[in-house]
Amino acid sequence: MSSQPSHIAQLQTPALIIDGEIATQNIATMAAELPGSRLRPHMKATKCTSLAKLHVLAGHHTFTCATPQEVVGMARAGFGTDLLLANETVDDLRLAAMAAEQDQAMITVAIDSDATLHAAHRAGIKNVMIDVNIGLPRCGVAPEHAGRLADSARSAGLHVRGVMGYEGHLMMVTTHSEKLEKVEACMALLRNAANDVGGDIISAGGTGTYNMHANTGVTEVQAGSYSLMDTQYAQLGLPFAQAAFVVGTVISSSAKWAVIDVGLKSLGMDHGNPSIDGHRVWFCSDEHTTFSPNDGTPPPVGTRIRVTPAHIDPTVAQHDAAWVVNGDDIVDRWAIDLRGW
Amino acid sequence: MSSQPSHIAQLQTPALIIDGEIATQNIATMAAELPGSRLRPHMKATKCTSLAKLHVLAGHHTFTCATPQEVVGMARAGFGTDLLLANETVDDLRLAAMAAEQDQAMITVAIDSDATLHAAHRAGIKNVMIDVNIGLPRCGVAPEHAGRLADSARSAGLHVRGVMGYEGHLMMVTTHSEKLEKVEACMALLRNAANDVGGDIISAGGTGTYNMHANTGVTEVQAGSYSLMDTQYAQLGLPFAQAAFVVGTVISSSAKWAVIDVGLKSLGMDHGNPSIDGHRVWFCSDEHTTFSPNDGTPPPVGTRIRVTPAHIDPTVAQHDAAWVVNGDDIVDRWAIDLRGW
Repeated sequence: MSSQPSHIAQLQTPALIIDGEIATQNIATMAAELPGSRLRPHMKATKCTSLAKLHVLAGHHTFTCATPQEVVGMARAGFGTDLLLANETVDDLRLAAMAAEQDQAMITVAIDSDATLHAAHRAGIKNVMIDVNIGLPRCGVAPEHAGRLADSARSAGLHVRGVMGYEGHLMMVTTHSEKLEKVEACMALLRNAANDVGGDIISAGGTGTYNMHANTGVTEVQAGSYSLMDTQYAQLGLPFAQAAFVVGTVISSSAKWAVIDVGLKSLGMDHGNPSIDGHRVWFCSDEHTTFSPNDGTPPPVGTRIRVTPAHIDPTVAQHDAAWVVNGDDIVDRWAIDLRGW
Repeated sequence: MSSQPSHIAQLQTPALIIDGEIATQNIATMAAELPGSRLRPHMKATKCTSLAKLHVLAGHHTFTCATPQEVVGMARAGFGTDLLLANETVDDLRLAAMAAEQDQAMITVAIDSDATLHAAHRAGIKNVMIDVNIGLPRCGVAPEHAGRLADSARSAGLHVRGVMGYEGHLMMVTTHSEKLEKVEACMALLRNAANDVGGDIISAGGTGTYNMHANTGVTEVQAGSYSLMDTQYAQLGLPFAQAAFVVGTVISSSAKWAVIDVGLKSLGMDHGNPSIDGHRVWFCSDEHTTFSPNDGTPPPVGTRIRVTPAHIDPTVAQHDAAWVVNGDDIVDRWAIDLRGW
């Protein structure tokens, strides 16, 4: 093994890097708009308890998770004040693993059916949230059945904290007024369901709609990708800067193109190819990206290149650690310790 | 932790499964066409030394790797008869790690430039292969410079085993005669380079062109995806069957669609959405796939569903283990032990 690198030129590549100052600034910008419990930072985007510390330093103490692994990992790392699994599961072992953390942590699990309610109850989960479908064809009970499901949960002895919904189908609507109108229509459904369900919480949103909930009745917004950003969210003109990159090394260079050792196995590819500032990306293979400069000749073998991911969440999930940088200097190493399911 | 599951209904999901009999049959079919050293199985597709054993049982003793991690892992697992890194690297530590295995293993590293030649030489690598560009804009020296690079390698004291090229841009050409013609044109370039380079080996090909090298002068074919297959390669009508799937559990079900816990973080997405037999896939999210049956009503919560990946190589790379199945019975667990770089 190598000794701790101090400069990105010393990194073994491909390597995930996070600019700590930019991430901190993104988190501060969000905390100014949605302070404290108005934001429930989503850990699925970053899967990193070291990054969770930045959220706490900015005043947030409630967190959203997408997998039981994230919930258990956050609880064990001391971030258990209020953890929400904003996802359904009928995995008895994983529900039991989350329930086992309830002495030290407050854990709430989303349910959207009798089956998920009974699984949570069987495992000894104490708190649930009613997940309501508000337009995205994914999880969530139909709004008109939310109250009945909440009643069943209370009959079983569970504490119902409120409702959640996710307007994921609206994240990339580009016209502000159209997006506001559509978000409001979704949240009207969620408010009605909340009336039937009871509880204190109405949870919704994401990085693409975080600034549209001032008057929707939503008590907290679930967003996480904003802390690191990607080229897809950058299209929305949000006040967050790119904080995470995958660093590669040029391993082959010709008159017309160069190749780095950042391939699709180190990137999330569902939003398409990554970007390289000042260059055109031709294509990605398993272990390679071929690219060329907008001007001039391709860089020589050995050159370090920063690749900007098109989708940050699955990109982070490909790496077991992130190197924290200040410019090109390496100042820390953060384990991506919440990977897996 | 759970005890060893014996049936896919007991798996924690998402879970990668490999049908051992189908994989063995695929490997037998290929070995009949390209026996022994005519095939150099590519481990980038499967990243699994347990699967490498099936190749050995079928008569293959030479292997292709895409990363130093794969080379070192294969050497340490006892598959070091003849390992080729069919990729360039200037990482001194990783080259040294491969060189350190040379007492027990025969290791050959691809080079395509003075920089990659010098890096290999510096690290004490003994054997190199000249990687030649034959049309895909990626790695490889221009054919007319291959002989000069081989001369430089020999002057430095390295053993030059021959040439390799990869006609990756032709894998998905669908007309057989057109593909044959184009492959032949690429291999004419490679044969000319081989004449200038010397050595015994002319290495090329992949799953998409494995059956086109009877008369190309190529001495060995690099292919790996054929052992597990995916929906993209299935379009080619090859004599290999789907052997790997990601198993999910239905976590939410409505009148029109159902949702499983197989999301894009458990799949390679660069070839698009996965498939589900008898169903239509609507879309994938980080932790979900929404789908509906071609006929009838969506399956209830708790149902197990097999998802067929669109691209097998990056799908396998998302998992730390594969469960080996016979029908729905689990017969073994194989570590995906060659992940990473």
